[in-house]
Amino acid sequence: MLIICCEDFQSTGKLLISEDIEPCPKDDELLISVKAFGINRPDILQKKGLYPAPKGASKTLGLECSGIVEKIGRGVIGIKEGDEICALTPGGAYAQKVVVNYQHCFRIPGSLSFAEAAVLPEVYMTCWVNLFEHGMLKKGESVLVHGGNSGIGCAAIQLANWVGATVLCSVRTEEKKAFCEKLGCSYAINIENEDIVKSLHKNFPKGVNLVLDMMGGELTKKNLNCLAKHGRLVQIAFLKGQFVEVNLMEIMKKQLCVTGSTLRSKTTIEKKRIADLLKKNIWPEIDCGKISPCLFKEFKFSEVNEAHSYMENSLHMGKIAVTIS
Amino acid sequence: MLIICCEDFQSTGKLLISEDIEPCPKDDELLISVKAFGINRPDILQKKGLYPAPKGASKTLGLECSGIVEKIGRGVIGIKEGDEICALTPGGAYAQKVVVNYQHCFRIPGSLSFAEAAVLPEVYMTCWVNLFEHGMLKKGESVLVHGGNSGIGCAAIQLANWVGATVLCSVRTEEKKAFCEKLGCSYAINIENEDIVKSLHKNFPKGVNLVLDMMGGELTKKNLNCLAKHGRLVQIAFLKGQFVEVNLMEIMKKQLCVTGSTLRSKTTIEKKRIADLLKKNIWPEIDCGKISPCLFKEFKFSEVNEAHSYMENSLHMGKIAVTIS
Repeated sequence: MLIICCEDFQSTGKLLISEDIEPCPKDDELLISVKAFGINRPDILQKKGLYPAPKGASKTLGLECSGIVEKIGRGVIGIKEGDEICALTPGGAYAQKVVVNYQHCFRIPGSLSFAEAAVLPEVYMTCWVNLFEHGMLKKGESVLVHGGNSGIGCAAIQLANWVGATVLCSVRTEEKKAFCEKLGCSYAINIENEDIVKSLHKNFPKGVNLVLDMMGGELTKKNLNCLAKHGRLVQIAFLKGQFVEVNLMEIMKKQLCVTGSTLRSKTTIEKKRIADLLKKNIWPEIDCGKISPCLFKEFKFSEVNEAHSYMENSLHMGKIAVTIS
Repeated sequence: MLIICCEDFQSTGKLLISEDIEPCPKDDELLISVKAFGINRPDILQKKGLYPAPKGASKTLGLECSGIVEKIGRGVIGIKEGDEICALTPGGAYAQKVVVNYQHCFRIPGSLSFAEAAVLPEVYMTCWVNLFEHGMLKKGESVLVHGGNSGIGCAAIQLANWVGATVLCSVRTEEKKAFCEKLGCSYAINIENEDIVKSLHKNFPKGVNLVLDMMGGELTKKNLNCLAKHGRLVQIAFLKGQFVEVNLMEIMKKQLCVTGSTLRSKTTIEKKRIADLLKKNIWPEIDCGKISPCLFKEFKFSEVNEAHSYMENSLHMGKIAVTIS
């Protein structure tokens, strides 16, 4: 089977198509013939050697896909060969075939295409667990989502709206500001022109209840400044820096909580639990069109470097998929 | 009435006894004729100008006392003139008389002396809310308490034992190590001789569920290292530094929560709620001698500088009180 190989990326600067052996599903796994896969930020880090795959995971990139079930392990319940599904993968989705735990698979909701379905699992699972569990976001609260136009941002805006929270976003262009506000963000702040802390406090003098951040670095200080009493900072990545300074006095005085998680480091059982919550609560909303995958652009298998380049240059508003014909 | 005045501390290096006008209780307040007050770390910081009193609070030091009710406001329920009580004060307890919200008062439990009762409110309220609410400590979990021999440490050890948690402490002498282990700490680590992270992992390879810390500074990194997956760092002071570096990757990977609070910044209603929980759950334990105030030493009103000096030189194992004859 063909895969997209990142092993020579450090020397060539390119992802290359190569041959690999077809993986074999274990008892609780199934083999998917991949029709589409989603591009995610961790893929960019992983190809650069900055985000090593967890122990036992495929060295091939790819955290989510859609496709047709080709083989099932002996312990698989509720899914059969020929089913069309989408799935969270433990790596390996940048390939014609991938194995995945059957409990991390979803039916394709609504009348979504393979490309649209492929981009659901990673961001919706990440946003669900970080907004509602680590972040404890509730109806009537407010949340600041950085990079509202990103794949994560689009999912976070829609999930926060679904629960009845008010959503603020940071963006870097007027076009992205309009995009986020159309998607359900009450107030998008263009941080190229405005100071996030000042702008936010104009509309929310007490601050917001939650900040969902993937930047870290110098932004962390501002994130804490933006939080109201009892506010939560939930970190899901740190594109601007891993080691950050925090003011303990600010944390104590406002009784803040600085927390976060990576979906990838969660156990199989935790991922199943999160997937089940999405199937119950969010898949019906996608069925009826209330929640969207926000697919921005599709690329061919041979265009994967262009797909990455789109994300690296932040040209996207929503998710990016690669389809396999 | 006489008070202990800290206004000239910065020039004289001494607390001085001076005269002040007797305060008048508002509707929901009562006037206490003070028999004893407790010494707390924030008093040391406040006299040095490092911890300003909140808006509206007395400029006089003192966060807790015991004594006899002398006058009551019109809205006071359940307490009458002549009652012997102890109380959390909003400042002002270093004085012959102090006013306090009646909802922050406690009966004197067991057969405690005024000095013993005076040292209960601040540390037990602080430890209750930070261990059980911010820290969510539960039966079967483990907690690392820094400075186990401090007033806070003694209360934390006993409350954690009460809830059924395993307690580890850091201390700086062998004498303090023995003291903490006698009080109910399973394992005290003398950090003058041993590395806290290594020693802790020898006994708790997965780390502890909670760290209660009043140091901050360079210790923060070690605190995060000591935590198990889903662990909580609860900060209640920062004697070693307010601005600390944290590793967002460590927080995300272990799904940690960095939080904390100051009792003083909590609202009147929050303080009442915490006081009520202590009255219900912990006062009966003190009545029957299962939980102790751990009073280490009493000083006279005129010896307040010696009392502070004891705390500043970390000579104490337990609480320090000043009595007024």
